[in-house]
Amino acid sequence: MNYPTGIKSEKKNYISYGNRGMTLESDLNQTNEFYITNDIAIIHKKPTPITIKKVDYKSRKDAIIKEAIFKTPSTTDYNGIYKGKYIDFEAKETKNKTCFPLINIHKHQIEHLEKIIKHGGIAFIIIRFIHFNETYFLEAEKLLHFIKNNTRKSIPYEYIKQEGYLIQEKYNPRLDYIKIIEKLFFKEVLWKI
Amino acid sequence: MNYPTGIKSEKKNYISYGNRGMTLESDLNQTNEFYITNDIAIIHKKPTPITIKKVDYKSRKDAIIKEAIFKTPSTTDYNGIYKGKYIDFEAKETKNKTCFPLINIHKHQIEHLEKIIKHGGIAFIIIRFIHFNETYFLEAEKLLHFIKNNTRKSIPYEYIKQEGYLIQEKYNPRLDYIKIIEKLFFKEVLWKI
Repeated sequence: MNYPTGIKSEKKNYISYGNRGMTLESDLNQTNEFYITNDIAIIHKKPTPITIKKVDYKSRKDAIIKEAIFKTPSTTDYNGIYKGKYIDFEAKETKNKTCFPLINIHKHQIEHLEKIIKHGGIAFIIIRFIHFNETYFLEAEKLLHFIKNNTRKSIPYEYIKQEGYLIQEKYNPRLDYIKIIEKLFFKEVLWKI
Repeated sequence: MNYPTGIKSEKKNYISYGNRGMTLESDLNQTNEFYITNDIAIIHKKPTPITIKKVDYKSRKDAIIKEAIFKTPSTTDYNGIYKGKYIDFEAKETKNKTCFPLINIHKHQIEHLEKIIKHGGIAFIIIRFIHFNETYFLEAEKLLHFIKNNTRKSIPYEYIKQEGYLIQEKYNPRLDYIKIIEKLFFKEVLWKI
C-alpha cells in the first residue's frame, strides 16, 4: 500500500462544498469547544506540523515566519481526555461516493492508532462522505482489520456504513461523537455492575 | 497576575547554554522517542501553533508557507498515554537561579492543566534550572496550589526543590519522567492488591 506525503486535501475541497455546510474540521472544532465549555471532555486539534525555515524577529513578540513547509504528520490530528481515558482520532472527508481512499491517511498515523490501542487508549477515525452528508465513526480496530486483510487502497462505503456508526448532526454539538464513545466503551461497565 | 502572549524563550536561550548540553526540548524528544521505541508510553510534543497568512501553492505537494505568525498556545506542549492513562504536561527552562518566573506559562495553559486534573488525567510541569543543571517534575496540583495561594509572579527554587521531584539525567532515556509518574500514580495500586 502506498501512503503519500502530501498535504491535506481539505483546503482544496473547501469551495466546492462550502454551500452544503461547514467543513468537517470546523464542525469538530465547534463540537470540541462545546465539550470543553460544558465540562464533558477536553479534546483539541493539534496544530498543523510545519518546519520553519526563515523567521523575521522584528521584536520578541512580533516574530513573523517568512518561510516554512508542511511536515508529514507523525500522529493523528485530535487527542484528549474523556472520563479519564485517553482519546485519539483522525478526521477525514471525501467527495468519493463509493469508498474512502486510504491515500488520505498516512502510514505513520495508522501505526500511531495501532500503538494507542495497544496502550489502552480509545482510537478511531471520523470519515465524512460529503455527497451523502454522512459522517461516520469507525473504531481504529476495524480500520486496522480492514487494512490487514485487504489489498485494495480504499475502504468501501458499504463497509464503513456497516461497521461504523453514523454520527447524528445537530445544532450543538454539531457532531456528538462522545455519545458513540460512551455507548461503545463506557456503557458495558454499567452492565457488568 | 500577568500572563504574556509572547513566544517561547527557548529559541533566545539556545546559544547561551548550548555548551552545557542539550535543550530541555531535545532531551524530552529523545526521552519520548525512547518511550515509543520501547513500547513504554506514547507521548508527543505538539507542533508549535501558528496562523498561516500566505501560502504559495506551486503544486499540491510543494506548498510553501510565505507568511505566518506564532499563536498563543491554548494547551500544553506535550500529551499522550501511559498505561491507559492520559498524560499532559508543559516543559520550561529558566536561567534564573532563585525562582521560576510564572511569565513562562500562559494563563490558558494553567487553565488547561486544571481541566485535565478535573477529568482524571495526570498533569504536571517539568522545570529545568539551567544554571544548576537540575530538572524537576512538579505535579500540576502543586503548581495550581501555589498560584492560588500566592500573589508573587514566580515560584521560588526552594519550593520546587521541596515539592517537586528531581528527574535524574541519564544517557538513555535522558529524562526518565515516567519513573516518577509510575511511583506517584501507579505504585499505590500495587499496594492495594
